[in-house]
Amino acid sequence: MAFASLSRRGLLQKIGIGAGGAAILGAGVACGATSAAERQDALKQASRDARASAAAKAAPADHATHTNPPVVQAAPTQQGISADAMDKHHEDGIKAFPAKTQGLGGQPLPFTMDGDVKVFSLTCAKVRWEVRPDEFKDAYAYNGTLPGPEIRVTEGDKVRFVVKNDLQESTSIHWHGLKTPNGMDGVPYLTQPPIKPGTTFTYEFVATPAGSHMYHSHHNAMEQVGKGLLGPFIVEPKDKSKYPKFDKEYTMVLNDTLLGFTLNGKSFPATQPLTAKLGERVLVRYMNEGLMNHPMHLHGMPMQVVAKDGYVLSNPYMCDTLDVAPGDRYDVIIDADNPGAWAFHCHTLSHAESPDGMFGLVTALIVEDPSKPKA
Amino acid sequence: MAFASLSRRGLLQKIGIGAGGAAILGAGVACGATSAAERQDALKQASRDARASAAAKAAPADHATHTNPPVVQAAPTQQGISADAMDKHHEDGIKAFPAKTQGLGGQPLPFTMDGDVKVFSLTCAKVRWEVRPDEFKDAYAYNGTLPGPEIRVTEGDKVRFVVKNDLQESTSIHWHGLKTPNGMDGVPYLTQPPIKPGTTFTYEFVATPAGSHMYHSHHNAMEQVGKGLLGPFIVEPKDKSKYPKFDKEYTMVLNDTLLGFTLNGKSFPATQPLTAKLGERVLVRYMNEGLMNHPMHLHGMPMQVVAKDGYVLSNPYMCDTLDVAPGDRYDVIIDADNPGAWAFHCHTLSHAESPDGMFGLVTALIVEDPSKPKA
Amino acid sequence: MAFASLSRRGLLQKIGIGAGGAAILGAGVACGATSAAERQDALKQASRDARASAAAKAAPADHATHTNPPVVQAAPTQQGISADAMDKHHEDGIKAFPAKTQGLGGQPLPFTMDGDVKVFSLTCAKVRWEVRPDEFKDAYAYNGTLPGPEIRVTEGDKVRFVVKNDLQESTSIHWHGLKTPNGMDGVPYLTQPPIKPGTTFTYEFVATPAGSHMYHSHHNAMEQVGKGLLGPFIVEPKDKSKYPKFDKEYTMVLNDTLLGFTLNGKSFPATQPLTAKLGERVLVRYMNEGLMNHPMHLHGMPMQVVAKDGYVLSNPYMCDTLDVAPGDRYDVIIDADNPGAWAFHCHTLSHAESPDGMFGLVTALIVEDPSKPKA
Repeated sequence: MAFASLSRRGLLQKIGIGAGGAAILGAGVACGATSAAERQDALKQASRDARASAAAKAAPADHATHTNPPVVQAAPTQQGISADAMDKHHEDGIKAFPAKTQGLGGQPLPFTMDGDVKVFSLTCAKVRWEVRPDEFKDAYAYNGTLPGPEIRVTEGDKVRFVVKNDLQESTSIHWHGLKTPNGMDGVPYLTQPPIKPGTTFTYEFVATPAGSHMYHSHHNAMEQVGKGLLGPFIVEPKDKSKYPKFDKEYTMVLNDTLLGFTLNGKSFPATQPLTAKLGERVLVRYMNEGLMNHPMHLHGMPMQVVAKDGYVLSNPYMCDTLDVAPGDRYDVIIDADNPGAWAFHCHTLSHAESPDGMFGLVTALIVEDPSKPKA
Repeated sequence: MAFASLSRRGLLQKIGIGAGGAAILGAGVACGATSAAERQDALKQASRDARASAAAKAAPADHATHTNPPVVQAAPTQQGISADAMDKHHEDGIKAFPAKTQGLGGQPLPFTMDGDVKVFSLTCAKVRWEVRPDEFKDAYAYNGTLPGPEIRVTEGDKVRFVVKNDLQESTSIHWHGLKTPNGMDGVPYLTQPPIKPGTTFTYEFVATPAGSHMYHSHHNAMEQVGKGLLGPFIVEPKDKSKYPKFDKEYTMVLNDTLLGFTLNGKSFPATQPLTAKLGERVLVRYMNEGLMNHPMHLHGMPMQVVAKDGYVLSNPYMCDTLDVAPGDRYDVIIDADNPGAWAFHCHTLSHAESPDGMFGLVTALIVEDPSKPKA
Repeated sequence: MAFASLSRRGLLQKIGIGAGGAAILGAGVACGATSAAERQDALKQASRDARASAAAKAAPADHATHTNPPVVQAAPTQQGISADAMDKHHEDGIKAFPAKTQGLGGQPLPFTMDGDVKVFSLTCAKVRWEVRPDEFKDAYAYNGTLPGPEIRVTEGDKVRFVVKNDLQESTSIHWHGLKTPNGMDGVPYLTQPPIKPGTTFTYEFVATPAGSHMYHSHHNAMEQVGKGLLGPFIVEPKDKSKYPKFDKEYTMVLNDTLLGFTLNGKSFPATQPLTAKLGERVLVRYMNEGLMNHPMHLHGMPMQVVAKDGYVLSNPYMCDTLDVAPGDRYDVIIDADNPGAWAFHCHTLSHAESPDGMFGLVTALIVEDPSKPKA
């Protein structure tokens, strides 16, 4: 399952957790329906709840004197702004999450059948892309979105891609991880002529091997991929019995240059959260389309690494931080056994948090406990 | 065992190796008791010894003409300084190692019992921290040291942390690798209110899973962790039979930004060496709290990687260079079977050596041969 | 087998593939014998072939309208140059590959026997090194080449290296991955005196363990290694039965700083291609001597990772992108089962492609199909 565009309201309805995380998360309700006053009231209540909860759990009588002294003055920080002003920026980011922006990438790419061939169309064109609320950037897109639409087929499928270039420069597509005939590999002048502006090129091959792969430009690629010509290409195994079991899945495409630090084309708080019901097994497919390593860290639960570049590992291993290098794909499985809203981010902190709060490669995994009443 | 502050004299007493490494190392004796003249004499002797040793081993008669031609002039280098002047800087660094500085991080954090709960106190405050001799930097510290004190408990222990914020900005603590309830996870506005200046917050949870973990700020974290709000959190397994056997252990916390390249809060030559007796098995726990990958390289002996992020690997593997990404922890075991003083450093050479000599992420593993007479 | 200097003509004679890749590759014939007019004709024919081939395979009647619209105007790109002008730069790079330059590194280092000791000579000196056609840089070299000559011995061999320093600064050699006595480890002032300008130092040890290792300067190393004082040191296993089978092998030494992004001392298009006959198993030994991670990506076929730092993995794993960190060595085996000329490059795109075309850490693996007629 790809990310669907979740409204904040939809998210909150899914979350059945009371104190702390989701309650505070719920307080923001940035998507419109509640008033500023209501949001403020909800936030205050949530803060009171969280503090009360923490105090109840963690502050027995003999430690009470250490807890929450009354003096919370706006002391100047190193940066010359008050602690409260800095906190406000951080709070605003969390409250705004998931922030609504125009455009959502990675949605399923439809196809038509031509005999036994699945036929897909991809058009490259310039777009204005909203990376964060009110931050629009010049980008290049397949079919108008970043990442490009998700291609999903089954191992052994015959596939054809009709690629139209509406950019003002040439391009090509490399099917990163797929085993194609040489002429379909997408490297201009080595395996094909470039796809000139205004022209179309047709790729055709058998989709193999199974796994989490990618497609992206291989012409002026540092710029074209940096600007958005990239997308997930998932080949499901014909025999699923050899692939670990999971209940739902997400893909995380990482990028880091011309459009800033983006997770599926968006920067926090415009990233989409992942959700799971308590007890579900969640597959996450990491795909790095950037120029830097991104050690992805999930709070609250470890990840089991089950595949590299689509190849199932004979010896899966556990971790909570997984370094994903440019071009890498990793499949990990998360046992969603710890309820709450958990930070999920690149642990290169300069890709995730500034003095003004979290940004970039940050999202959350929200594990809903169905036994708890809705907030 | 955490690093203890070893004096140079103490070190040398431990080393039973004659020529080359330790002899030259011994020549520095930077910690005070010997005079400059004595140091110089010792150095000359050690150099003579090392050359004689090398010559005896390596220069049979028919190669003698290649060895040590008499012309050793101070030729100008590319940098416009003489080779001898450049060498002097390098020599000074090695001679000064391990250089004495104020403050030693990562020492055991004491606790008190409250019923069956281990209660720890951590206070965040600004400090002036001596990274290298006479280089003091503005830093943030837990209980006054960088890294913060080492927390060490056993899997399943109930733990409580009373965290006092004496900074001028808010903070929080994330227990990186620990599986806590959501409200104890330490992400302001997502799971708790920030810990405002002058206030206290109490965390309480059961310490699990076993392994090499960390604690650090999760608020304005790029700056706060960069400035020192970080420490090792080691959870020993309840059942130690599933963890590889070792004789002694060290933790290496890596950091790389606001305070320069630091290993356990210090830059070479102020880093502490590791020591082992010949035949001992040494566990090293790498923890990367920085913003860059650090491929750690040990000379003389390989490392067996036995755990990632605290999770014991079902298939340990051997290496001599191990890339540790931000947020990563790796446990490796070294068979100390090769006597001598061995360089141990990040192989990103710009993190370890400049034209003025070694600095930053450099230390040494000193393997003592008890059968050899003391130097 | 190390890389031999392949002429473009020799390459083409090896390639038995018709359309697309090799045909276009063949069109360049940059090494001299054909005229510009012949090259142009051949290129046009190859382009027509490739387009016809792609059209025949991929454009059935009902998609024909999408294919190759007639309008291919020289539209201005983002960079203010026309698409055709940009393409020309890319084409020129591919056509020039493999471009002839002076000097070829990594060639076998001869030795003499002194009793049962293999005696090698290495001299460090400044050179002018041609990194790409007509780009000469000031470099440091062992025996005049970058990388230095390939040392290749068998596990357990007694080896001696007579190292002469003809630089204007001191140096030393560290045998990265080898297990030497402490005094032979090559760290000035820790294990030996520096090798002063004009002097010689002799290293002697038993070559162990087996595997893909390196030798490089350990004095002012960020500069000296960055400028070229590095080379491959391969220790073949005494018992080859425990090492995976392969038919031919290549070594790829990566570097990234003072001389630009270089693969075996050269930047694309001056890099040497790898070649294999269809069905051969090709061993590639990656060695990173740079300051950055390089995720190496091969098109068309996956790689099986069989050893890390020379140590054979008990559980090899498959991938198509392998992140190689500074100091790392990885052995991978490629089943050359997909005919054609395949791009092979660092997937940090800024190390491989600019708006002016491919450069730096780029080469190709050319898989020849002997059943096909020569082009």
